[in-house]
Amino acid sequence: MYGQIKLFSGTACPDLANEIAAYLNIPLSGRDIIKFPNENIFVRLHSSVRGQDVYLIQSTAAPVSDNIMELLITVQTLKLDSAGRITVVIPYLAYARSDKKDQPRVPITARLVADMIQIAGADRYITLDLHAGQIQGFFSIPGDVLTTFNLLSDYLMQKRRELHDPVIVTADLGFAKKGRNFAAKIGTSMAFIEKRRSGNDSNAQAMTVIGEVEGKDVILVDDEVDTAGSVVQAAQIVKAYGARDIYLCFAHAVFSPPAMERLSQAPFKEIITTNTIPLPAHKQLPNLRVLSVAPVLGEVIRRAHEGRSVGEMFNE
Amino acid sequence: MYGQIKLFSGTACPDLANEIAAYLNIPLSGRDIIKFPNENIFVRLHSSVRGQDVYLIQSTAAPVSDNIMELLITVQTLKLDSAGRITVVIPYLAYARSDKKDQPRVPITARLVADMIQIAGADRYITLDLHAGQIQGFFSIPGDVLTTFNLLSDYLMQKRRELHDPVIVTADLGFAKKGRNFAAKIGTSMAFIEKRRSGNDSNAQAMTVIGEVEGKDVILVDDEVDTAGSVVQAAQIVKAYGARDIYLCFAHAVFSPPAMERLSQAPFKEIITTNTIPLPAHKQLPNLRVLSVAPVLGEVIRRAHEGRSVGEMFNE
Amino acid sequence: MYGQIKLFSGTACPDLANEIAAYLNIPLSGRDIIKFPNENIFVRLHSSVRGQDVYLIQSTAAPVSDNIMELLITVQTLKLDSAGRITVVIPYLAYARSDKKDQPRVPITARLVADMIQIAGADRYITLDLHAGQIQGFFSIPGDVLTTFNLLSDYLMQKRRELHDPVIVTADLGFAKKGRNFAAKIGTSMAFIEKRRSGNDSNAQAMTVIGEVEGKDVILVDDEVDTAGSVVQAAQIVKAYGARDIYLCFAHAVFSPPAMERLSQAPFKEIITTNTIPLPAHKQLPNLRVLSVAPVLGEVIRRAHEGRSVGEMFNE
Amino acid sequence: MYGQIKLFSGTACPDLANEIAAYLNIPLSGRDIIKFPNENIFVRLHSSVRGQDVYLIQSTAAPVSDNIMELLITVQTLKLDSAGRITVVIPYLAYARSDKKDQPRVPITARLVADMIQIAGADRYITLDLHAGQIQGFFSIPGDVLTTFNLLSDYLMQKRRELHDPVIVTADLGFAKKGRNFAAKIGTSMAFIEKRRSGNDSNAQAMTVIGEVEGKDVILVDDEVDTAGSVVQAAQIVKAYGARDIYLCFAHAVFSPPAMERLSQAPFKEIITTNTIPLPAHKQLPNLRVLSVAPVLGEVIRRAHEGRSVGEMFNE
Amino acid sequence: MYGQIKLFSGTACPDLANEIAAYLNIPLSGRDIIKFPNENIFVRLHSSVRGQDVYLIQSTAAPVSDNIMELLITVQTLKLDSAGRITVVIPYLAYARSDKKDQPRVPITARLVADMIQIAGADRYITLDLHAGQIQGFFSIPGDVLTTFNLLSDYLMQKRRELHDPVIVTADLGFAKKGRNFAAKIGTSMAFIEKRRSGNDSNAQAMTVIGEVEGKDVILVDDEVDTAGSVVQAAQIVKAYGARDIYLCFAHAVFSPPAMERLSQAPFKEIITTNTIPLPAHKQLPNLRVLSVAPVLGEVIRRAHEGRSVGEMFNE
Amino acid sequence: MYGQIKLFSGTACPDLANEIAAYLNIPLSGRDIIKFPNENIFVRLHSSVRGQDVYLIQSTAAPVSDNIMELLITVQTLKLDSAGRITVVIPYLAYARSDKKDQPRVPITARLVADMIQIAGADRYITLDLHAGQIQGFFSIPGDVLTTFNLLSDYLMQKRRELHDPVIVTADLGFAKKGRNFAAKIGTSMAFIEKRRSGNDSNAQAMTVIGEVEGKDVILVDDEVDTAGSVVQAAQIVKAYGARDIYLCFAHAVFSPPAMERLSQAPFKEIITTNTIPLPAHKQLPNLRVLSVAPVLGEVIRRAHEGRSVGEMFNE
Repeated sequence: MYGQIKLFSGTACPDLANEIAAYLNIPLSGRDIIKFPNENIFVRLHSSVRGQDVYLIQSTAAPVSDNIMELLITVQTLKLDSAGRITVVIPYLAYARSDKKDQPRVPITARLVADMIQIAGADRYITLDLHAGQIQGFFSIPGDVLTTFNLLSDYLMQKRRELHDPVIVTADLGFAKKGRNFAAKIGTSMAFIEKRRSGNDSNAQAMTVIGEVEGKDVILVDDEVDTAGSVVQAAQIVKAYGARDIYLCFAHAVFSPPAMERLSQAPFKEIITTNTIPLPAHKQLPNLRVLSVAPVLGEVIRRAHEGRSVGEMFNE
Repeated sequence: MYGQIKLFSGTACPDLANEIAAYLNIPLSGRDIIKFPNENIFVRLHSSVRGQDVYLIQSTAAPVSDNIMELLITVQTLKLDSAGRITVVIPYLAYARSDKKDQPRVPITARLVADMIQIAGADRYITLDLHAGQIQGFFSIPGDVLTTFNLLSDYLMQKRRELHDPVIVTADLGFAKKGRNFAAKIGTSMAFIEKRRSGNDSNAQAMTVIGEVEGKDVILVDDEVDTAGSVVQAAQIVKAYGARDIYLCFAHAVFSPPAMERLSQAPFKEIITTNTIPLPAHKQLPNLRVLSVAPVLGEVIRRAHEGRSVGEMFNE
Repeated sequence: MYGQIKLFSGTACPDLANEIAAYLNIPLSGRDIIKFPNENIFVRLHSSVRGQDVYLIQSTAAPVSDNIMELLITVQTLKLDSAGRITVVIPYLAYARSDKKDQPRVPITARLVADMIQIAGADRYITLDLHAGQIQGFFSIPGDVLTTFNLLSDYLMQKRRELHDPVIVTADLGFAKKGRNFAAKIGTSMAFIEKRRSGNDSNAQAMTVIGEVEGKDVILVDDEVDTAGSVVQAAQIVKAYGARDIYLCFAHAVFSPPAMERLSQAPFKEIITTNTIPLPAHKQLPNLRVLSVAPVLGEVIRRAHEGRSVGEMFNE
Repeated sequence: MYGQIKLFSGTACPDLANEIAAYLNIPLSGRDIIKFPNENIFVRLHSSVRGQDVYLIQSTAAPVSDNIMELLITVQTLKLDSAGRITVVIPYLAYARSDKKDQPRVPITARLVADMIQIAGADRYITLDLHAGQIQGFFSIPGDVLTTFNLLSDYLMQKRRELHDPVIVTADLGFAKKGRNFAAKIGTSMAFIEKRRSGNDSNAQAMTVIGEVEGKDVILVDDEVDTAGSVVQAAQIVKAYGARDIYLCFAHAVFSPPAMERLSQAPFKEIITTNTIPLPAHKQLPNLRVLSVAPVLGEVIRRAHEGRSVGEMFNE
Repeated sequence: MYGQIKLFSGTACPDLANEIAAYLNIPLSGRDIIKFPNENIFVRLHSSVRGQDVYLIQSTAAPVSDNIMELLITVQTLKLDSAGRITVVIPYLAYARSDKKDQPRVPITARLVADMIQIAGADRYITLDLHAGQIQGFFSIPGDVLTTFNLLSDYLMQKRRELHDPVIVTADLGFAKKGRNFAAKIGTSMAFIEKRRSGNDSNAQAMTVIGEVEGKDVILVDDEVDTAGSVVQAAQIVKAYGARDIYLCFAHAVFSPPAMERLSQAPFKEIITTNTIPLPAHKQLPNLRVLSVAPVLGEVIRRAHEGRSVGEMFNE
Repeated sequence: MYGQIKLFSGTACPDLANEIAAYLNIPLSGRDIIKFPNENIFVRLHSSVRGQDVYLIQSTAAPVSDNIMELLITVQTLKLDSAGRITVVIPYLAYARSDKKDQPRVPITARLVADMIQIAGADRYITLDLHAGQIQGFFSIPGDVLTTFNLLSDYLMQKRRELHDPVIVTADLGFAKKGRNFAAKIGTSMAFIEKRRSGNDSNAQAMTVIGEVEGKDVILVDDEVDTAGSVVQAAQIVKAYGARDIYLCFAHAVFSPPAMERLSQAPFKEIITTNTIPLPAHKQLPNLRVLSVAPVLGEVIRRAHEGRSVGEMFNE
C-alpha cells in the first residue's frame, strides 16, 4: 500500500538495527553518514527511496545532539528523495523528561524535538516507553508508542519462583501508577519511596519507605536509569528497612556518569533492562541482564507496513 | 504594549468572571451570546476590540460541548475584529484526562482541544491545575498554567492545629507525586491507596492502603472530583483502616452525577475545593468549602497585560 | 488505491448510515461512542484502520455542539490510528448560515467549523446542499458538495400532472437563483416574496409577492426549514394573493421549535424534504414526504473510493 | 500601537491612491516598480518600513495577472523588510466570481488568491463589495470588507425627487437580496429579470420581467458591470415591458470589451458607479457618473491604524 | 502506487508538452483554459483525476504573470478534483534570478513563487537548470531539478573535432563554476570576462578577459540569454582579444527584446540552446540550434511515476 | 514598539556577546545553560521576558550539534515565556554549504536548520556572510544578512600602499563574483584558480591559475577557511606561478583540523579574518589578524530594536 519496505539505520544503535533487520529478514539499506572535520553531518543514500515505505532506526541517547541532528538530516534526505512514507523508529527518545514547565522560564524540549521531527518530514514515529504517555500528544503525526512492560514483566514472572515474598517498589512517586501495573501482573504487594527536601540544603533529601519491605525481596522498577543516584539510594534505604535481595528493573539504560561506579558498588542481585540504548563493554556489569526489544520493534514495523493492527499484539 | 486591556466573559462561569473584573477594577465588555432555536451559537461584541489586549474568561465544565464551541466562536469573533492579542482564560479545561493513548484506537482529545483553541485564533492561554503538566506541550502558543496548590495548602496550613496527626492520602497513584508536595508543605506523612482489578469482573476493584493511617486525620488530595466514586471508596477504606477524621481537598469540583448523592453520604468532615467550576445551589453541601481563584487569575491577567513576571508571584 | 474501504457512523444519523451501508453492501465498522457523566465524549474503534480508506458519516443537526465534537474526536481517533485516508460525510453541515460578516463584530462560524474538521485530521469531506456554495472555499481539503436538487425536482416532475398551473416561489431572495433552477427544470413561472422591515419595530416585516400566484399551485422552495416562521408566513401571503394549493419543498428539515406547531397548522398540501437530518416520530406530519439521500451518498462514497468520477453522476 | 503609518501604492490605481493619501494628509511612500524586458516584476522600497504600519493600495482589474503578481511581490518585499503590520487595500478583488465549484472540475480561484495574499505576508486586508460576502471566509487573516452601498444609495436618494415612480430591478437573481436593500433604503418597489436557457442553443436566453415596471423609472442595480451584456439586455427587456427612464447603478466598472460599445448604444439615462477600478479616457461616457471611494477607504485606514472601530462608520 | 498517470499541459509550451506525451506514449488529457474578457483565467478538466498521478507541464516564460497564474489555477483545480498526486513540470522557472536580497528592501520572488506553487496544492515539482541550485531549498516539497548540461555538452563533444583549440568562456563570474564543468567535460581551457562599473556612469562597464582566448575558438556558456546584452558584449570583447570563431551555448532562450536584433548582428558562428521556452518563428535564427529536453523530461516523469531512481539516469 | 530590549548569549561565543553588549551599553541578561550528565541541555532564564524585544547571540561553529540544539532550546524557552519578539543573532551559520542537492539523495541541511529555527519560535534572524545569499530564501521569517565585506576591504584599503601590485585571487570559482567586488573596491586586477579532477584518482586535482599573478602580491579571498586545504594549495600554486607576498582574507575562521598545522606552515604574510567564530589560544597564529564584527552586529541590533533602517548603514 505504501510501496516497498526499506530499512535504514543511523549510527546510534547499529546492533539493534541489525537485529531488527534479521527479525524482518530484510537487509539494511546502504547509506553514508559522515561527520566532516567541521562537524557538519552529511548523509547520502546509496539507492533511491522514491515512493517507498521507509523505516529509519535511530536512538537518541549520547551523543544526544549529534544523534538528533543525524536523525533529522536523514529524515530530510529521505523526504527530498520522494520517499512514499517515512517512519522514524526511536527506541529511546531523548529529552522526554523535559515535558512540562514545572518552574517558570524553562523549555518543554520534548515538544521541540517532536516539532523538529515533523518539520524534517517524518510521517509517523515508533518509540518505546516514553517518560510520560502524554508526549504522544506533542506529535501531530500518528505514532506507535510501545512498551517494554510485557518484556520486563514476563521475565520477572519467570523468576517469580526464585523470589522470596517479592514486593514492587518505586523510587519515584511519578512512576507509582506504572509500578502498580508490575505488582498487579506479578501478583505482589507494593511499597513506595518518598523523597523530600531536607532542611535548608536544597540537595539534601530525606527518604522514607511507605509500605512493607522487611524480609521481602524488593524489585525496584523505573522507566530509566540515568546517573543511578536515585535507585542506588533507594536500594540503600530498602536495605535499611530490612529488605532481602534487591532487583532493579527498567526500560532505558541511559547510564550517564557516574552510573557505572554507583551500580557496580550497589547491592543489586540483578539489574534487568533492555537494549533501547546500546550498552558497550564499559557499560556492562556481571549482574546486568539485557533483554532485546528487536522482536517487538520488528513486528510493529511489519504490521505498520502491511496495514495490520499493532494493538492486537498486546492483547492476550 | 498590546493596546488597552479588555475583559470578556463567556456564559460558563459568570460569577468568577465578575470577581476577576472586580479584582482588576475593569468592567466586563459587553457581548451577546445567543443560542438560536437550531442550537447554533451566535456571538456579537458590543464594541470594537481593534488592537486591544483581550482576555476571554470561559470555563469548560458541563455543558462541555456548548462551552467549548462558545469559547472557540468567541475567539474567532475577536480575531476577525482584529484584536491585538487574545488570551483565553480557562479556569477548568475539559478533556484534560484524555491526554494519552493508554489503549489502542482511542483519541487524545486534550490535544484536539488545544489545536482548536489555536486554530480559532487565540494567542495565549491561562489555565489552572491541568490534569497533567504535559498538556502545556500540546499548545504551540505560550500560556500560564497556574496552580491552586498554594490556595489549598495555605488553607490546610491554617487548619493544621485543628488536625490530629494528619496524613496526606492519594486515592489515585497518578497523583502520588503531587500529593507528596502537600505532605511536604504541611509537614505530614503520606499514604497511598492502591486499586487493582479483582478477579474476572472488570469493574470490581480491590483496594489496599499502603502506609499508615490508623488513628490519624486523613487528608485525601486529588486534582478533581468527578462522580466521586473513587474518593468515597477511598474514604471508606481509610476508615476501615482506622482513620479518624477525613478531609477531601482538590482543585476542580466537576461533580457529575451521582457525585452529590455520594458526597452527601460520605464521611468527610470537610470538603475543600475552588470555584474553577461554578457550584450552583444543587451542588452545595454544608461541609463544602469553596476557595476563590479570582485573585490569582486577576493578578496573572494584570501582569500578563503589563508584561511583568508571573513566575515571581509564586516565589516566597 | 487507498486501502480497504471502511464505513463508520457517529451517533447523529444512525438510520441514514445504515441505509448507506446497505446501499454499499458494506457493514458499518464497530466503535464505542460514550458520553461520560462529566459529558466528555469518548471514542474507541473496535478494530484497526491502518492504511484504510475510511468514511465517517455524521450529521450535525441538534444536539449541534455534541455532534460536532463527536465528529472531530472520531476523526482524530481515526488519524491517530493511522488511517490511510479519512473522508467525513456530513449530510447536513451546521453553522452554514454563519458564512459571512453581515454586521460588524460577528463570527464566520462555518469557516471555523471547516478549520476544525481539517485540524482534526480529515482528508476530504462530502456534504449536501450547503447554504452557500462558497463554503466549499472555506476548506483547503478537497470535497464533494452534492445536491438534493435532482432528488427533489425529479419528485416534483412526477407530480407535475397533478398540479394546476404551478409556480415556483421563494420565500427568501437569497434563494432566488436556486429557485430559478427549479422553475427551469419543471417548466414553470416564478414569483418572489420580498420582506422588508416595517416601521420602527425591528421584528415587524412587511411582505409582498412579486410575480403572479393568483389561481396557481404554489411550490415554495428553500434550502432548509428551521423554525418554519418564514415559510409559514410565505404560505399565508401567497394564499392572500389568491394561490390555490401550496407545496413546500426543501433539502434540510431542521425543524427547530416551534416548527412542528407552525407546520401542523399551516396550509401546505404536501411538505417534501429529505433525510439529511433524522426525523423522529415527533417530527413527523401526515403531509410530510421524506426522500432518502442514501443512494446518492452511497454512490459518491463508492466512486470516491474507486477513484472514479463523481461529476458524471450528475450529467444527463 | 503598530508603528508609524506608511502608504504605498502599486501601479494599478494611482489616482485613487493619491486621493486616499490626500484624504489622510500623508504622502505616498516612494518605491520602484519595474517590469523588466523578460516581464519579471521588480520592486524596491525607497526607505525602510521596519516596524511600521503599512497600507498597500492596489486594485486587481486588468491587467489582472500582472496586478496580482505586483501586489504579492510588494507584500513580500514589505515583509522581508520587517514591516510591523501589512494591510493590503484592494478596492476591486479579481476572481471574486470564481468563488465556488458550480460544475465539476473547476477551480475556486478566489480562495487561491486569498491564500496567495496570506502566504506573501499580508496581515490584514481591506476591500469593497465582494461578489459574495462569503469570500471573507476564504481569508484566515482579519479584514474589513466595506461596501459602496451607502455611497451609491445616498446618491440615488438625492436624485429621488427627479425620478418618476422608480423601481429597483436586478438583472441577476443572485443579486436579488442586495437589490432589496436598495429598494428598502430608497423606498421603492422591486422587480426581477429572470433568465432561462432557451431551446437547444446553450447561449440563447429567454428573459422575463417579474414584477411591475410599466410606466416606471427603472434603476438597474448590480455589483459589477463586465462586458455589459446582461445589463444592456436587461435595459432592452424593461423597455419592452414599458419602463420610462432607465438608470444603471453598480460598484465596480470592469468594462471589458465590448462593454464600451454596448453601453454607448444602450438606453441608460445615467450610469452610476465608483472608482474602485480606474476609468481612463476610453472608458468614459457622457452619462457616466463616477463616485469616489477614497473617503471611505481613507477613513477606514485611519481607524484601522488608530485601533478605532470601523463598524461605527456605518451606523446612523 | 499513485494511481494512473495523467499528463496535462498548460498553454505556455504546447509543442514541448506534445513531444513529452509522444515520448511517454500517453495522450495529453483534455482541459479548457479560457481567458475571459475580464482577463480572469478559467480552467475546466474534461475528465476526473481522482486518485491519479498527474503531471502538469507549464513553462513560465512570457507572458510570465499569466503563465504563473494559469499554472497555479490549474494546480488548484487538480487538487480540488482530488488528484492523488500533483507534479508540476516547469521547464523554465521564472523569477529564478530574484533569489536573494543583494540590496536592501527588495523581494526574493523565487521564494514567493515556490510558496505559491505549494499553497496551490502541488506535491512535487520537476524543473531544469535553476539559476541557482539553492532554489531547491525554497521548496518544502520534494522535486527533481534536472540539468541540460549533458544535452548541451554532448552536443559540444560531437562538434569537438570541428573546433580549433576551443576555450570555454563565461560572461558572468557567477557562472564560472558551472563553466568549469563544461571545460572539464570537453577537455578545454577556460577564460573569464570580468565586468566592472566604469567611472561615474552607473551603466558603463569596463570588461576584461582573464585567461587566454587569442587564436582560439571561444565557447561562451551561460544558463540563460535574456536581452543578450552581456553575451553580445562578451563576443565583441573576446573578438577584440583575438578569438577565432565564437559559439554561444546556454539552457534557456528567454530572448527578451532586443535580443533578436542583437543576436542577429552578433558574430556567433552557432547558437546552441534548448526548447525549455518555446521559440516561435520570430525567435528563430539561421545559426540557432535548438536541442529538445522532451526525452529527459519524459524519462523523469516515467521514473517518478514508477517510483524508480531518477539519479541513476545521470550516472555513466 | 516591541517592548524593552534584552540581550541573551548562548555558550558558543561569549566574548563576542560581551563586546556587543558593551557596544550597546546593555548588560547580558542572566540565564543558566546546563548540560546534564545525560547530555540533555537545559535552559532557565533568570528573569521574565514577557513582551520584550529579545536578541539571542549564538554562533554555530563546533561543537555544532550542541550549539544548534542550545540555540533552539533557548529560543523555545523565550517563546514559552511570552517574549514579545525573538531575534536570533547567528554570527556564523553552520551547514550553509549544504544548500543544494548537487548529487542525488543528499540533504539540504541549511533549509532544515532554517525550518528548525522558525519552528522553535524565532521571529527574525541576523547573520553574517552566508555561503550563498540564496539561503535568505530558506527562511520565511525576515532577517538581516550582513556582510564583513566592508570590514575586510576597508582593512585591505589601509594596507594598500604597503602592497606591491596586488591582485585578488579566488581559490574557488564559486567565490569569483564576490572576489570581483574586492578587486573593484581596492582597484586591483583579478586571477582565478581552476581545479579539475586529475586522472582516475577522484581526490587528485590539477590546478591552474587563470590570469596574471607573476611578480604581484596576491590577496586570496574566500568566505570561510575550514581545513585550509584549498587555500594552502592555492598559495602554493600562485607561488609556483611567481607571486610575491601572499595574503589570505576571509570572513569565517572555522579552522577544523588540520587547519592550524597547514596554516602555520603556509607562506601567508598575513591572515585576515573576523571573530564570527571564537578563536581560542590554540587557534591563534602570529600572522593572524582578527577584526571584530561586534560594532556591526551591535549597530544592527540597535536599529532593529528602534525600527530604523539597517540598509542605510551600508550606503556611502
